[in-house]
Amino acid sequence: MSEQLLHRFAPGFAEGDGSMKALLGGKGSALADMCKAGLPVPPGFTIETTVCHTVIAAGGKLPDSLKKEVESGIAFLEHRTGSRLGDPSNPLLVSVRSGAAVSMPGMMDTILDLGMNDEVAVGLARRTERPAFAWDCFRRFIDLFSTVVMGLPHHAFDEPLEELKKERGVKSDRELNEADLKRLVNEYRATYRAHTGEEFPTDPRVQLERAIGAVFLSWNTERAIKYREVQHLTGLAGTAVTVQAMVFGNLGQTSGTGVLFTRNTATGDKELYGEYLVDAQGEDVVAGIRTPNPISHLEKDMPDVHRQLEETVQRLEKYAGDVQDVEFTIQEGKLFMLQTRSGKRTGAAAVKIAGALVDEGIATKEDALTKLVGPEHIDHMLHPHFADEAAYRKANLVIAKGLPASPGAAVGRIVFTANEAEEWKKRGEKVILVRTETSAEDVGGMHAAMGILTTRGGMTSHAAVVARGWGKPCVAGCGELTASEKTKTLTKSGVEFHEGDWLSLNGATGEVIRGKLELKDAEITPEMARVLSWADEVRRLGVHANADTPNDARVARSFGAAGIGLCRTEHMFFAPDRIPHVRRMILADDEQERQRALDALLPFQRDDFTGILSAMAGYPVTIRLLDPPLHEFLPNEPKQQEELAKLIGVPVEKVRARVNELHEMNPMLGHRGCRLGITQPAITQMQARAIFEAACALKKQGVDVHPEVMVPLVGTAAELSNQKRLVEAVAKEVIAETGVEVPIVIGTMIEVPRAALTAGLIAKEAEFFSFGTNDLTQMTFGYSRDDAGRFLPDYVKREILPTDPFQSIDPDGVGALVKMAVEAGRAANPRLHIGICGEHGGDPASIAFFHGAGLDYVSCSPFRVPIARLAAARAAIAEKKG
Amino acid sequence: MSEQLLHRFAPGFAEGDGSMKALLGGKGSALADMCKAGLPVPPGFTIETTVCHTVIAAGGKLPDSLKKEVESGIAFLEHRTGSRLGDPSNPLLVSVRSGAAVSMPGMMDTILDLGMNDEVAVGLARRTERPAFAWDCFRRFIDLFSTVVMGLPHHAFDEPLEELKKERGVKSDRELNEADLKRLVNEYRATYRAHTGEEFPTDPRVQLERAIGAVFLSWNTERAIKYREVQHLTGLAGTAVTVQAMVFGNLGQTSGTGVLFTRNTATGDKELYGEYLVDAQGEDVVAGIRTPNPISHLEKDMPDVHRQLEETVQRLEKYAGDVQDVEFTIQEGKLFMLQTRSGKRTGAAAVKIAGALVDEGIATKEDALTKLVGPEHIDHMLHPHFADEAAYRKANLVIAKGLPASPGAAVGRIVFTANEAEEWKKRGEKVILVRTETSAEDVGGMHAAMGILTTRGGMTSHAAVVARGWGKPCVAGCGELTASEKTKTLTKSGVEFHEGDWLSLNGATGEVIRGKLELKDAEITPEMARVLSWADEVRRLGVHANADTPNDARVARSFGAAGIGLCRTEHMFFAPDRIPHVRRMILADDEQERQRALDALLPFQRDDFTGILSAMAGYPVTIRLLDPPLHEFLPNEPKQQEELAKLIGVPVEKVRARVNELHEMNPMLGHRGCRLGITQPAITQMQARAIFEAACALKKQGVDVHPEVMVPLVGTAAELSNQKRLVEAVAKEVIAETGVEVPIVIGTMIEVPRAALTAGLIAKEAEFFSFGTNDLTQMTFGYSRDDAGRFLPDYVKREILPTDPFQSIDPDGVGALVKMAVEAGRAANPRLHIGICGEHGGDPASIAFFHGAGLDYVSCSPFRVPIARLAAARAAIAEKKG
Repeated sequence: MSEQLLHRFAPGFAEGDGSMKALLGGKGSALADMCKAGLPVPPGFTIETTVCHTVIAAGGKLPDSLKKEVESGIAFLEHRTGSRLGDPSNPLLVSVRSGAAVSMPGMMDTILDLGMNDEVAVGLARRTERPAFAWDCFRRFIDLFSTVVMGLPHHAFDEPLEELKKERGVKSDRELNEADLKRLVNEYRATYRAHTGEEFPTDPRVQLERAIGAVFLSWNTERAIKYREVQHLTGLAGTAVTVQAMVFGNLGQTSGTGVLFTRNTATGDKELYGEYLVDAQGEDVVAGIRTPNPISHLEKDMPDVHRQLEETVQRLEKYAGDVQDVEFTIQEGKLFMLQTRSGKRTGAAAVKIAGALVDEGIATKEDALTKLVGPEHIDHMLHPHFADEAAYRKANLVIAKGLPASPGAAVGRIVFTANEAEEWKKRGEKVILVRTETSAEDVGGMHAAMGILTTRGGMTSHAAVVARGWGKPCVAGCGELTASEKTKTLTKSGVEFHEGDWLSLNGATGEVIRGKLELKDAEITPEMARVLSWADEVRRLGVHANADTPNDARVARSFGAAGIGLCRTEHMFFAPDRIPHVRRMILADDEQERQRALDALLPFQRDDFTGILSAMAGYPVTIRLLDPPLHEFLPNEPKQQEELAKLIGVPVEKVRARVNELHEMNPMLGHRGCRLGITQPAITQMQARAIFEAACALKKQGVDVHPEVMVPLVGTAAELSNQKRLVEAVAKEVIAETGVEVPIVIGTMIEVPRAALTAGLIAKEAEFFSFGTNDLTQMTFGYSRDDAGRFLPDYVKREILPTDPFQSIDPDGVGALVKMAVEAGRAANPRLHIGICGEHGGDPASIAFFHGAGLDYVSCSPFRVPIARLAAARAAIAEKKG
Repeated sequence: MSEQLLHRFAPGFAEGDGSMKALLGGKGSALADMCKAGLPVPPGFTIETTVCHTVIAAGGKLPDSLKKEVESGIAFLEHRTGSRLGDPSNPLLVSVRSGAAVSMPGMMDTILDLGMNDEVAVGLARRTERPAFAWDCFRRFIDLFSTVVMGLPHHAFDEPLEELKKERGVKSDRELNEADLKRLVNEYRATYRAHTGEEFPTDPRVQLERAIGAVFLSWNTERAIKYREVQHLTGLAGTAVTVQAMVFGNLGQTSGTGVLFTRNTATGDKELYGEYLVDAQGEDVVAGIRTPNPISHLEKDMPDVHRQLEETVQRLEKYAGDVQDVEFTIQEGKLFMLQTRSGKRTGAAAVKIAGALVDEGIATKEDALTKLVGPEHIDHMLHPHFADEAAYRKANLVIAKGLPASPGAAVGRIVFTANEAEEWKKRGEKVILVRTETSAEDVGGMHAAMGILTTRGGMTSHAAVVARGWGKPCVAGCGELTASEKTKTLTKSGVEFHEGDWLSLNGATGEVIRGKLELKDAEITPEMARVLSWADEVRRLGVHANADTPNDARVARSFGAAGIGLCRTEHMFFAPDRIPHVRRMILADDEQERQRALDALLPFQRDDFTGILSAMAGYPVTIRLLDPPLHEFLPNEPKQQEELAKLIGVPVEKVRARVNELHEMNPMLGHRGCRLGITQPAITQMQARAIFEAACALKKQGVDVHPEVMVPLVGTAAELSNQKRLVEAVAKEVIAETGVEVPIVIGTMIEVPRAALTAGLIAKEAEFFSFGTNDLTQMTFGYSRDDAGRFLPDYVKREILPTDPFQSIDPDGVGALVKMAVEAGRAANPRLHIGICGEHGGDPASIAFFHGAGLDYVSCSPFRVPIARLAAARAAIAEKKG
């Protein structure tokens, strides 16, 4: 902890700035920056994140040293506002807010209107001449304090309010009068007493200490922990707490509160994008309880405020070099800025905004690559969309239209609770989560769903903000529909949809569509291509793709892959016209029979390679020899075994016997990879012949082919040289037969720990290495990917592992092997070309690691190629910056 | 190749010596040594092993440079003997023999009497005045040349001989006269012509070149390759070939031939031990065709020769510092030495001889440890013996008595061919191989058998020599019994034993015993203890044992283990009184139920630990927490599942569901080891409580206890610290409850590659490391031990791997991880104690590696402890010698 735990701010003055995000949290540091810029910010102070764990450890009690600082912080606020905490004649009310270094919207607690008691309420009523406002503030404060600090249930406060409204025949809180609200205050206090066994605290200083403690504690609520888990947020110190003088948006028609983005974060268009409510307190907008007005209306309602707001947020955008997400309150015609931060946006918006900010001179290309466009944005854009939008409209399948809260297409079966969404997903179902509105408790289920549909709430409602952050399709505030969690139905004028029914959502238009629409893969937009071209200018790592078919190869090329880093030949074996030959080969009684089956497979494989090599003309194609154990090609079910036996004319007992014979205890560590090619060299020979016959024939036709043969699962140099000799011999035969020279390039996967450990020996036999980090991770950790689901989630939760090592490379263990192998491999063979073709090849954090380890390229699935290009650029920039 | 490919020798002169074994082979270098010592050796020359592969690659053709050298070698022999190759008036005949650096008795080919043709036969008949001898030599030569060089079948020569003997009414070859033998020579030549389409070569130089080529080729016969495989002989250059002037033991009653050992290699007694035949050629003794006389008879038959022989072999023994295995021939009263080498001996003989040679000043203690007693000898002695020898004699179960050819007790079901022995063994059967006599073709089956019984042949017959080399029990030459391969019966005066019947063999007495006798584990003899005490004086590595029961612990102590390096707690879980609780624990629906099951297990585990800690009072006991995946404890068979459901009162569906739920694709890489203890901490807590309750209670009683808790399958430091905290907390509770202080020592297995790679981090949490090299080998190579049988034998055969890495540590891969972990572990925690408890802990080559890697101790199965003590001493001596 620094000596001073508390950092004060007020317009023109701040003890801190934007560089102190880790200490002050995002909110605290942004408030300091705004104050330094002289913007109208209510005065306040921020307590450092470093205190968070101390307070949590003490169960919410503040250390004495902090209490003293808080006292002086309050003195500062009293001095700046001219009001005093607990002074009925001119009371200071404050808000107590959370704010970690990384934004966790809605996950932690906030308390407003702190400082209220009976005397203060009376004083405030007199001073503002709005008794209803004063007692409403008190009511709200008791509600928040009770639920946040004391953990009382929300319904204990919502129900009396609803009953009262019913009794009084009104719809809105704002129609309740002083007497009503006084009555509510008394009822709330009775509820508080009944639940806690104590009187509601009247001393504002006691209120404040307990509120600060409670906000710190909210760092560790279940929903906050879950959110950090889902978002992979680790290494944070905790939340900061900001205590700030209240300003009131609920002081009548010249007051209001709103949130806005400096650009449209759904489309990227240059326009203020947001909403506000007149005569409302801040939380009312985000909560989605009243449907707010679009920000453009403000120009008509309060032109001066609108102008001032516009100027202010443009200054903020320029200063930050990025789109800002701003909260403001208008108190009796006066604008106050309450928060500013980078705005979450869709992928399409991100690339468009990045281009615009660079063009406008607000940001550099490097900013665009490192700050404005993230891998997650590229990812969102590469999500699927509907195959034919016109068709579903023409067919009248649209059942309702809500707000286009988060673009993208989602297709799934509807469920009505977050828990069900998670459970269905576990069962392998694709679901759409349907809720009246969502709250922080729902984040797990929202994450599990393909898309989210709410019947209430606006573009900045919880559902909308969270969905956009994740790039998950969302239709919000679809008031035409009624969702019932109880009956598990979604209704529209008599038409009912039930749990499990298929719906499709178009998050870009807000359409809710009946049935299971067909999805189509995404393409690269010009805006994305522009940003990626900047990435290509700075990156050092090559980006190849893993592709097994000519079609995949074409997709990979269109996404910018400079080669195929992994072409798996076994996928070709499974096609219905090949599998009988494969099975005949496996069931063969002698060499002749096996050879006949392989001869039958040869033309198929040759065609496969012809297709891929053509599609990748001019680029290298790395073809991996057969990898999986042979039993994967035989059927396990008795019925299928009988069919197979009939098909290829052998007794079913023979099929069964061979299946049993090939059964393995641990197939992952079994007879597969080059172990097959060594014990059954005819398989390797057939594959080599198919590759070189295809390559030579194409070259004869003038196609520029670059086949590379990759030997899988090598653990010793002798294995590689065994397979290399076989392949070379066949290649030379084919070259002699055809009279066409094709270079013979042979390398190996490094996916067995021993291969990495003996890379110096293996490199002498290899022209290239390609790290198979999936298997390397399995063997280095001793985790079976198929089985680790039993404990890996638990491991990540308990922070035994920072993240799932199959998603992001483990730098200390698996990464250490990669580094060793690169070093020893290059020392033994300076011309060794080194890449990685495991799934980590598409993971940004892993790509940064591979850049650092000095690899030449990464290879990933075609749809990850653009992400990899960006991530490679980020790695290069980070390295340059040191 | 050196410049000279051929090294000549004759008494008093030799181009080479005993240090050149790799070049000259064992036989060639020993002949050179004997010549230098002036012993009576027929002159000859040896062609280097380096030529072997060149000749093999050329299909048996000699390079021109070699042909020239052979020519000059022949000139040397002619000069020394005064005879000439192919000269009828005084013909030189030669033998052509194989001889690799390591003895492979009977595995490669030999050709005798080379240089014969019609003219030479006539001349030799005249010169020796023994025409029958001359034509017999010619006959033998055609037989050997045809079968060895041309690959003709043996029976093509045996059958005409047998027919002729029948026709002439004689029993022995020696009773055939000149005419008979001439006729045979002609018949043999006709056979040769019929099979090869060419005349039998008459030019001795052509004969010689082809013979030399054929002997080189015999390096790669199937039986030779198989022998090297079985004996783990790798890295040899090939065989050398020795061409030597013939001397004849078959020149009547003053001639003869024999083999002897300078001491009794079955018992170790100090006496000449061997056999000879009068009027015979060398191969007749070893082949077991005629039953030879014990060497002691020679004293009476030819006292002078006997005295000369005795003096000579004692010189040889003293010179070599070891028991010698000698071949000699007596030609008309004159002694010739043909070969000397270290004699293969039984384990009991080895330790006794070592003691005697040290006492006699012929060898040093270091010689005893490095040369005279090998790990294989200790191993043999620790093989089981009969529980009660007196009993089976008293019960009249002995059915016959043969020669005590190789000591030890064997119990098995009889089979009559080597192939069957191998097949039955594969099925998990224990077999006794019964043969009339064995030949080199049988080695595979001999190795597969528990013991060998032959009805013909002496103490130096093929069966006897090979069995002794392996320490496998053998009863040879049991003439009372008749074995028929055809009818698969073993008969003695009407009593028949059939394939599959149980027999027991006492290789130390020659007894063949009816039925399946009970075996008892071995103990350390005083002679062995003496040699091991010398080992303990020089070794640096500690030797612990892997033991799970008090009984194992006691055995380990009696064999000299200085602690338990691995006590597996899961074995305790399988006992019939515990397994229901274990299963109840696994099937528990909630924490309470699980805890109740664990509470029920606690007293059992406590008793287990009390037993082991008592048995090992004063020594450390390293207890490993539960390791295997839980599904191993549940039954897979529907019937057993039903029984279990009934037993513990749950529906069978629940048992089935849980079995399915726990099923893993790759259990080796699944939810096991500390992954269990982390997700189910109550298991770790129960085990920790059992350990410390046992330890504290014993200490209270004054027992000196040293429990150490070992966490299995750790891959990250966080896993270890998680489990450590659990164990420490429980230990402290128990210490507080009992008021008895027991040190809390917690360490980890290093068996996951990642643990070795991050050993520096893990060492900070650990007091000790114990390498689990079984799992470490599985994961480093990516070999499942259960499945690797499909390709590992092939890998060893193709020399892709030098040896099975589960038997002997892989120094480059697994070993590299061990070294890394030792270095990083010690750097992070200088007091770290480091051992190994995989099965490599009992393998001598691996022990040498672990010594070099700087480990503190090895832990192995109790019966390997004496071997490990010797191997550790050898490693220390080797290191001292640099």
